[in-house]
Amino acid sequence: MFDAKKETKNIVKFIRDYFKSNNLGGVVLGISGGKDSGVVAALFTEALGKENVLGVTMPCHSIKDDKDLAKVVADYYGFELINVDLTKTYDTFKDEITTLGDFKEENTLNSDINIKPRLRMSTLYYLAALYSSLKGKTYIVGGTSNKSELFVGYFTKGGDSVCDISPIADLTVEEVIAVGEVLNVPKEVLYRTPSDGISQKSDEDKLGVKYSDIAKYMEDKDSLPKEIATKIEKLHKSCEHKFNIPTYRKEK
Amino acid sequence: MFDAKKETKNIVKFIRDYFKSNNLGGVVLGISGGKDSGVVAALFTEALGKENVLGVTMPCHSIKDDKDLAKVVADYYGFELINVDLTKTYDTFKDEITTLGDFKEENTLNSDINIKPRLRMSTLYYLAALYSSLKGKTYIVGGTSNKSELFVGYFTKGGDSVCDISPIADLTVEEVIAVGEVLNVPKEVLYRTPSDGISQKSDEDKLGVKYSDIAKYMEDKDSLPKEIATKIEKLHKSCEHKFNIPTYRKEK
Repeated sequence: MFDAKKETKNIVKFIRDYFKSNNLGGVVLGISGGKDSGVVAALFTEALGKENVLGVTMPCHSIKDDKDLAKVVADYYGFELINVDLTKTYDTFKDEITTLGDFKEENTLNSDINIKPRLRMSTLYYLAALYSSLKGKTYIVGGTSNKSELFVGYFTKGGDSVCDISPIADLTVEEVIAVGEVLNVPKEVLYRTPSDGISQKSDEDKLGVKYSDIAKYMEDKDSLPKEIATKIEKLHKSCEHKFNIPTYRKEK
Repeated sequence: MFDAKKETKNIVKFIRDYFKSNNLGGVVLGISGGKDSGVVAALFTEALGKENVLGVTMPCHSIKDDKDLAKVVADYYGFELINVDLTKTYDTFKDEITTLGDFKEENTLNSDINIKPRLRMSTLYYLAALYSSLKGKTYIVGGTSNKSELFVGYFTKGGDSVCDISPIADLTVEEVIAVGEVLNVPKEVLYRTPSDGISQKSDEDKLGVKYSDIAKYMEDKDSLPKEIATKIEKLHKSCEHKFNIPTYRKEK
């Protein structure tokens, strides 16, 4: 049974200990306006103090809601929130791609969706190095991936999964919400329907499976109807390459 | 003893088998004009045929040499080489950062160096998805990291180390060159002094250690003067976080 109060305390301690033993100064977090980054921001603020947390919104042809909800989180916990609008950078890159050919939208759709998390990751690391230099203490990038989305590979390789410390990667969606309740994450953020803010669809629509079923699968896959279990298993198996790069090993 | 002919054959087989068993169609490779990407391009061309290899040059305020030498490789092996100039994308991003403040160059230097490999990685994945859609077969991104640079962490996290298949990651610099000799990689590419093409310094200058010493260390660290061994050991230990993200694990 997941003890949300106890786990929250343990995560805060985990963060604090890691920062102390590695002589780190601050954390940079992408704040999307969704529950994962809201809970992670709450955890880091609790662990390090608000003055050592930098939140970043990175709109890229995004809906205004995201930024407003990010501000709700930052205001509630009191950490600095800055905005790096990636729309022009994205457009400039797309212009460059267009010099290669006049591609149809159906051919660039998948590319267009996945470059955004990669540009965001690049921005977070840019800011971590910049703030390290400006403030004279080391900033690292905090991760916001949860166990459920990692399990089915619902993330962009080289994008949102790249980070320096991962506080909720072993927590299911339901457990992340339970931790958020302990930390009083604002309700409009904590209970917002998860979506990538890119494709206008909810995560569950895109995946074709429910997060609650993913949690059930990880707990006991036989508790699910076979059709759903097979779907989740397939997703899980097809993302193996996102975690382990196939590497040639020479003869000993 | 490293048997270059045998290992070359084995790597080619490794690539071919992986593509076959995963039903993959082609590979996208960043071609820098240096030995690693030259050797990797030779390996993939041998394994998959030139028509299934896409080479990409990605200048970003880069010296012209890089592109010319990339063309030497592509012409020699006969694969398609396209150019995506990232200079404007980089400049647009930098303009956006400037809206946050008028930072000194000494504060942005580290950020500026490391965002380039991240933009390049993002571009390779953009093209892999685009070509997959255009050609109706799956393209993946090939990695060009070697064992020596991985060992001392001489790569950008979330940048040049992100790939879908890694053919030379278990080969030292010296072994990569030996494989390149088997495959007749053009001499001006194979024996070029390795540099990041960014900071105007050679890799060995930047690292403060020689690749030959890294190879010796990995073979038998006691064969090196203690001062050099200590330096390499320190580099190796400080890059642990690039491979394993510290992750909180909940109670069982």
